[in-house]
Amino acid sequence: MKLEHIEAFQQIVGSQYVQTDAETLEQYSHDETERLVFLPDVVIRPRTAEEISAIMKICNANSIPVTPRGGGTGLSGGALPHLGGVVITTDRLNNIIEIDERNLQVTTEPGVITEVLQNAVKEKGLFYPPDPSSRGTCFIGGNIAENSGGPKAVKYGVVKDYVLNLQVVLPTGDIIWTGSNVLKNSTGYNLTQLMVGSEGTLGIVTRIVLRLIPLPKYDLLMLVPFVSLEKASEAVSAIFRAGFTPSAMELVEIDALQIVSKMVDSHAVPVTNDIAAHLIIEVDGNNLDVLMQEMEQIAEVTTQYEGGEVFFADDSQQKDELWKLRRRTAEAVKMAGYTIEEDTVVPRAELPALVKGVKALGLKHGFHAVCYGHAGDGNLHIRINKPGTPNSHGDEAMTAILRELFALVKSLGGTISGEHGIGLIQKPYMDIAFDPVQLQIMRGIKKIFDPNNILNAGKIFDHA
Amino acid sequence: MKLEHIEAFQQIVGSQYVQTDAETLEQYSHDETERLVFLPDVVIRPRTAEEISAIMKICNANSIPVTPRGGGTGLSGGALPHLGGVVITTDRLNNIIEIDERNLQVTTEPGVITEVLQNAVKEKGLFYPPDPSSRGTCFIGGNIAENSGGPKAVKYGVVKDYVLNLQVVLPTGDIIWTGSNVLKNSTGYNLTQLMVGSEGTLGIVTRIVLRLIPLPKYDLLMLVPFVSLEKASEAVSAIFRAGFTPSAMELVEIDALQIVSKMVDSHAVPVTNDIAAHLIIEVDGNNLDVLMQEMEQIAEVTTQYEGGEVFFADDSQQKDELWKLRRRTAEAVKMAGYTIEEDTVVPRAELPALVKGVKALGLKHGFHAVCYGHAGDGNLHIRINKPGTPNSHGDEAMTAILRELFALVKSLGGTISGEHGIGLIQKPYMDIAFDPVQLQIMRGIKKIFDPNNILNAGKIFDHA
Repeated sequence: MKLEHIEAFQQIVGSQYVQTDAETLEQYSHDETERLVFLPDVVIRPRTAEEISAIMKICNANSIPVTPRGGGTGLSGGALPHLGGVVITTDRLNNIIEIDERNLQVTTEPGVITEVLQNAVKEKGLFYPPDPSSRGTCFIGGNIAENSGGPKAVKYGVVKDYVLNLQVVLPTGDIIWTGSNVLKNSTGYNLTQLMVGSEGTLGIVTRIVLRLIPLPKYDLLMLVPFVSLEKASEAVSAIFRAGFTPSAMELVEIDALQIVSKMVDSHAVPVTNDIAAHLIIEVDGNNLDVLMQEMEQIAEVTTQYEGGEVFFADDSQQKDELWKLRRRTAEAVKMAGYTIEEDTVVPRAELPALVKGVKALGLKHGFHAVCYGHAGDGNLHIRINKPGTPNSHGDEAMTAILRELFALVKSLGGTISGEHGIGLIQKPYMDIAFDPVQLQIMRGIKKIFDPNNILNAGKIFDHA
Repeated sequence: MKLEHIEAFQQIVGSQYVQTDAETLEQYSHDETERLVFLPDVVIRPRTAEEISAIMKICNANSIPVTPRGGGTGLSGGALPHLGGVVITTDRLNNIIEIDERNLQVTTEPGVITEVLQNAVKEKGLFYPPDPSSRGTCFIGGNIAENSGGPKAVKYGVVKDYVLNLQVVLPTGDIIWTGSNVLKNSTGYNLTQLMVGSEGTLGIVTRIVLRLIPLPKYDLLMLVPFVSLEKASEAVSAIFRAGFTPSAMELVEIDALQIVSKMVDSHAVPVTNDIAAHLIIEVDGNNLDVLMQEMEQIAEVTTQYEGGEVFFADDSQQKDELWKLRRRTAEAVKMAGYTIEEDTVVPRAELPALVKGVKALGLKHGFHAVCYGHAGDGNLHIRINKPGTPNSHGDEAMTAILRELFALVKSLGGTISGEHGIGLIQKPYMDIAFDPVQLQIMRGIKKIFDPNNILNAGKIFDHA
């Protein structure tokens, strides 16, 4: 990085927000992705879209790699500066601009923590449903970049279903809005949806307009044990076929539950030898009697799949404890050595076949896997522990195994990421998900937005 | 059109499906858009994606304009062959391929009539909510092209919220799938959402995978009269703020209701002198008691906005009659001389300001307008009757008036089309909705898909 560029950045944002000290560079060299580390040359902390625009213009003119970063909770390496250069963090764009109660919308900057945003709208009786497990630390901007989901997606949809309009700084430095603050829009190509899930490769989102819905008054939560992982996943599809749409339908394999229970020292869930997996099922709505009835009927369905004795969460404390177990599962199993994570997604009814296939692959290749995730969406997180292999990135043997896994996912009608994105670590498998024509179109789109390939280059796919 | 090309098309689809007779050409020269007529050179009726691919390759190599066409119910001129050349109609791609009850999905060809598709899934207890007024004649493929909405959008969302995956023939003749048949997807750019609402300018959709939801067991319908259009539109936003999400929330101005009541010879709704507009409000769900209660509470809210005596539809016959009035409104007012239609959309709470502005513009410029539409979404259809001006297209005075209207819409945070698309007739106003950078990106995307600009060229925007 040339001194003149550093000085230019200092001029734009103030020198205290242009950081090149070793500690800062180390802090921004990793996120939650496996165990990968890439050092940037400089970390810049702008405050406004205009500042980001000015930085981008310099980087674009001088072909300096730019990596945008939110809360640093990504799981696919999207925020890792693998080419060095500039990291632009959005942590100072952290204002909620307006909660519009007349139109049930919120306008926010990208650096707001998702849970902070959720609580702010909740205070007004409003609801923003997408809530990734990392909601206590992730940024709403990162959620836009990855098209995050979380447990409520099964009833309420994912991030893309709530984004109405985005202000974006393009790699050229131009600032645009992608759409309009309206609920229906048939005006030109849907640039908003093109931006959602584009993993910071097309622009840096600087302002976000989300639609909100009325907050449901009540929710009920229960935990159902199953004697086999396959039976549990068969029950998932059956519950929907019976006409129910739970507000959450999570699957946690027993190994994962044991690990996380130990980590957080919880005895909320009794773990016995004959249990292989649990479903966590939530319903929500405005009528408590109706919800009670629904819960009973859903419990009835689970018994047809050898579901065991149901544990109802009696109060908000029990609910919180159950959700804490679920939310901290990823962190716990990663610490326990399951460092490689996949974010597979298949049509809901193919979940049993996927679960069976994962176990068979483990036996064949000598790894242990634990499965958990958003079963109602067919979105299964698979954490792999293969002694001696901490990362999938750059490991040939692991890549070969994962190619087998993703080929299975593809053959079941699924794809390689449901909510974590492709980033750096799923990039070698894009040819399984797409054929060359599709990839060529995506590369073409990238080039329209980023002619010099400076913004998060080498993420999702390589430049052609 | 050269004879050799006609012969090549005949070779591909069979000569009976390559039509150049005057009657056919006339039939495909217009749709429901104002009163516009453009003759194609030839109409081709392929049966498969492969046939469409072969046709496209010839057209692409010889720069022959191609206009795709569904049911011919479009309101923005998207299916009009304004450059002559080839019309490709999808009317023979009319099979529902599979209703997947395990995964709650349907795979269909584009030439299936929307209502036929809805009824087919309904028989399995499933629900595909988007239902434009034209559902009895429009094609599901056209709905994808325009990102259609309809009355249920207010609760259930629009077409884009149900499309999981699309098979598309590109202008180059390549056949791709845009995504995967899964509920969550963070794998590469969202080509599916880029295709939805692209008005047949990026490719011809040949297969569609839609997600379905369980069919609600009950619905209730009521009609509420208001003494002023503004009060009615104020009540709309108030109902949502009170925490209700009706499954339909339609606004019909009294002039429109009088015209359509006369056309269909209905006395379902008593029309008295002191009524200016009605709201049609529907709720749906699985518990009849809860719905009854909701309806009463919503009715209570309307009284705060001078809503008059509520008319509850007692049985399915009364419901059908009310919906028939609403669905046939566009057709009736068009026949009555209101030939120019706009499809404005604003944030819901800005509806009163829009309604007021429309009336003021009418007074200023000497036209009469009737308003109706999907008030719950802020999507207001405005039909204009200006004696001597049957079309907005190419009429300078009308264009100037509409520029004023759209500037108002934009100033209220809205945009120029909520569900009908831009096509040919809203194209002159795109500079109000977007600035040059946004338009340049859209043109760039068009070029990635259609380098020779053969497919529905000159729709949405002109080639740069």
